[in-house]
Amino acid sequence: MSGYTALELSNLKTFYQRQLLEDTLPFWFPRSIDDIHGGYLLMRDRDGSLIDDDKAVWIQGRFAWLLATLYNTVEKKGEWLAGAKKGVDFLEKHGFDVDGRMFFHLTRDGRPIRKRRYFFSETFAVIGYAAYAKASGDTRIGQKARDLFGKCIEYAQNPGLLEPKFTSVRPAKGIGVPMILINTAQQLRDTIGDPRCDMYIMKWIDEIERDFVKDDLRCVMEQVAPDGRIIDHIDGRTFLPGHAIEAAWFILNQARHLGNDKRLIHLGTRIIDYMWERAWDKEYGGIYYFKDVFNKPVQEYYHDMKFWWPHNELIIAALLAYLLTKDEKYAKMHEQVHQYAYAHFHDKSDGEWFGYLHRDGTPAQSAKGNLFKGPFHLPRQEWFCWWMIDQFEKDRLSGRNV
Amino acid sequence: MSGYTALELSNLKTFYQRQLLEDTLPFWFPRSIDDIHGGYLLMRDRDGSLIDDDKAVWIQGRFAWLLATLYNTVEKKGEWLAGAKKGVDFLEKHGFDVDGRMFFHLTRDGRPIRKRRYFFSETFAVIGYAAYAKASGDTRIGQKARDLFGKCIEYAQNPGLLEPKFTSVRPAKGIGVPMILINTAQQLRDTIGDPRCDMYIMKWIDEIERDFVKDDLRCVMEQVAPDGRIIDHIDGRTFLPGHAIEAAWFILNQARHLGNDKRLIHLGTRIIDYMWERAWDKEYGGIYYFKDVFNKPVQEYYHDMKFWWPHNELIIAALLAYLLTKDEKYAKMHEQVHQYAYAHFHDKSDGEWFGYLHRDGTPAQSAKGNLFKGPFHLPRQEWFCWWMIDQFEKDRLSGRNV
Repeated sequence: MSGYTALELSNLKTFYQRQLLEDTLPFWFPRSIDDIHGGYLLMRDRDGSLIDDDKAVWIQGRFAWLLATLYNTVEKKGEWLAGAKKGVDFLEKHGFDVDGRMFFHLTRDGRPIRKRRYFFSETFAVIGYAAYAKASGDTRIGQKARDLFGKCIEYAQNPGLLEPKFTSVRPAKGIGVPMILINTAQQLRDTIGDPRCDMYIMKWIDEIERDFVKDDLRCVMEQVAPDGRIIDHIDGRTFLPGHAIEAAWFILNQARHLGNDKRLIHLGTRIIDYMWERAWDKEYGGIYYFKDVFNKPVQEYYHDMKFWWPHNELIIAALLAYLLTKDEKYAKMHEQVHQYAYAHFHDKSDGEWFGYLHRDGTPAQSAKGNLFKGPFHLPRQEWFCWWMIDQFEKDRLSGRNV
Repeated sequence: MSGYTALELSNLKTFYQRQLLEDTLPFWFPRSIDDIHGGYLLMRDRDGSLIDDDKAVWIQGRFAWLLATLYNTVEKKGEWLAGAKKGVDFLEKHGFDVDGRMFFHLTRDGRPIRKRRYFFSETFAVIGYAAYAKASGDTRIGQKARDLFGKCIEYAQNPGLLEPKFTSVRPAKGIGVPMILINTAQQLRDTIGDPRCDMYIMKWIDEIERDFVKDDLRCVMEQVAPDGRIIDHIDGRTFLPGHAIEAAWFILNQARHLGNDKRLIHLGTRIIDYMWERAWDKEYGGIYYFKDVFNKPVQEYYHDMKFWWPHNELIIAALLAYLLTKDEKYAKMHEQVHQYAYAHFHDKSDGEWFGYLHRDGTPAQSAKGNLFKGPFHLPRQEWFCWWMIDQFEKDRLSGRNV
């Protein structure tokens, strides 16, 4: 059985390390630090010029997480810690409404433009705060991270606490909530620790397996009825391969954390297999953005575009699946998506990745950052793949069975 | 000066008439009438098969408008009148929430799935009710149309009545409201009449000219500050050429109604000129969906896709501009967009149009109807162009100066 050799893996590790530190991170840092109002200026065009000085709350938390994580795991650089603090302080000062919920979109000086019905701003603040608390030793921010995580659990368990977008006629739940919360809990656990994390991670994984993974259809749903039934309407049938793949690597990461738990490896790789079968574009390459479980037309016009982030998730998921199973099919899958992504998304002249390709792989526009794209999925992928290969190399050298 | 000959115009008239009655309408009628629950089943795939039996409230009102308008202007066919009644009755029974506002999305049997913060459901109900009231002589429904129009005026003048999506930090208003209300008032006036219409139409046209049309930039904005200033942020800079072009032909239609009002002809044709310069894709043809006034990247991923409806609006706008000005550039523009649209959107095998093309003109998916697309923009274009050429021919024969 073939697959990646130790040398190939080592080369990949170096590749991701260098891409992260010499290409992706320099695009954003230090120029995105807002020395006037705090926080980060992240909505940038291809060449780094600013498109907009507004601040997306999700991405303020995410970039604080990234800088603090680099400080915690790569090198104790003072500028990374100071950079993380800029985001944490800005969120502390401007991120929260009087009801304790977070905003979605702020002006440069922190005035609120929009609050949404979801609590993803909160989940990204948790990971930013937790990583920063570990890096800085600031226990007050650590407690804030734990308190916010508690609120996320509460919102997840009582959707009625948040204003609904739909009536109660056709209740539904999305995979996004358990998926993101698994990662939120993993980050909290791996930085400052919290006794609730492992129990909740397993609960959310079980919910995904029970209600969203459809083995009979070889599919993973984005939305289901509260009891897991498929809602056979246009929105209910639409699934988002990127979300399922992201969930898959969070699950595989949990398998690794539990000493290569076989059940979780089986679950994570099944999800990868289903999405690969259904969402890899065999003609042009790349992962479709939306698909319909019964192959009907979806509502979203841009369903066959190739977005950057599902490719980041699949690069991680396939590599982790390979390292955990040594099944060469995942090495091949990893190589295929890695080659596609670095050939089509990566901007060789100005660094970082374009966000949005047409189905045929040509860039649809030039933004590197906007309300939804920023320094997160790509640098996280490069950091995580580097770190993961490094861990597996260390485990092999130490003789630990991986 | 050349342009369309009388024979070419007559051929176009026949083309639109036949497309409407032999291709577009038969795709939807009678098969979309829901004999069990009332209303229409309109979410259909390429071959007419049903994708979803839910009902989009906008399109229930729009199809009632179309069927009643055909009855009023083409032929007194009982089946068209009965078909219009199906939609009006369904909206009467299921379209309204207890607070008097309308829903956005219903189940087949009329239970509410979603209500939105906008009042476009109401505007389409006004035109459906008004056309049906004229067709049927039902004065109760006519009064309902007038009452609903009154509510629309109230919502437009007091945006605070509807729950806001954004905070008050950066107030904005959209061209969509005055644009759609111009047409709502024109339809009400042209069917059952209402003394408020002409005054409000001019008020909304003045608002568009004053606040949204930027002659210095040769652009028409989608969103501006309440005083008409451009909001120099990613959302504020984004404009939607289809909306501006739609407003242009409503304005030209008002010019025609007022005996070829020169100021309004100048305003409508300026808008068309600006959008043609900025939004016609010179490489592949077709109208871009979104653009940025300063040519920066927009947030929307699908900005360079070609949607069906802006092409319907431009076919009308260019033809009406030509008929009103006899300027051959509008005949050329009309021919170019007509050729592009019927070559790329029209489904020669199963009829009707695809909704969404990639930038290069290939169809991105096969739906003919969904939550936003249905029997409206295309049949309205075919009906209006047919009717309009017919009017101009009659005016010419009668010696009236056009």
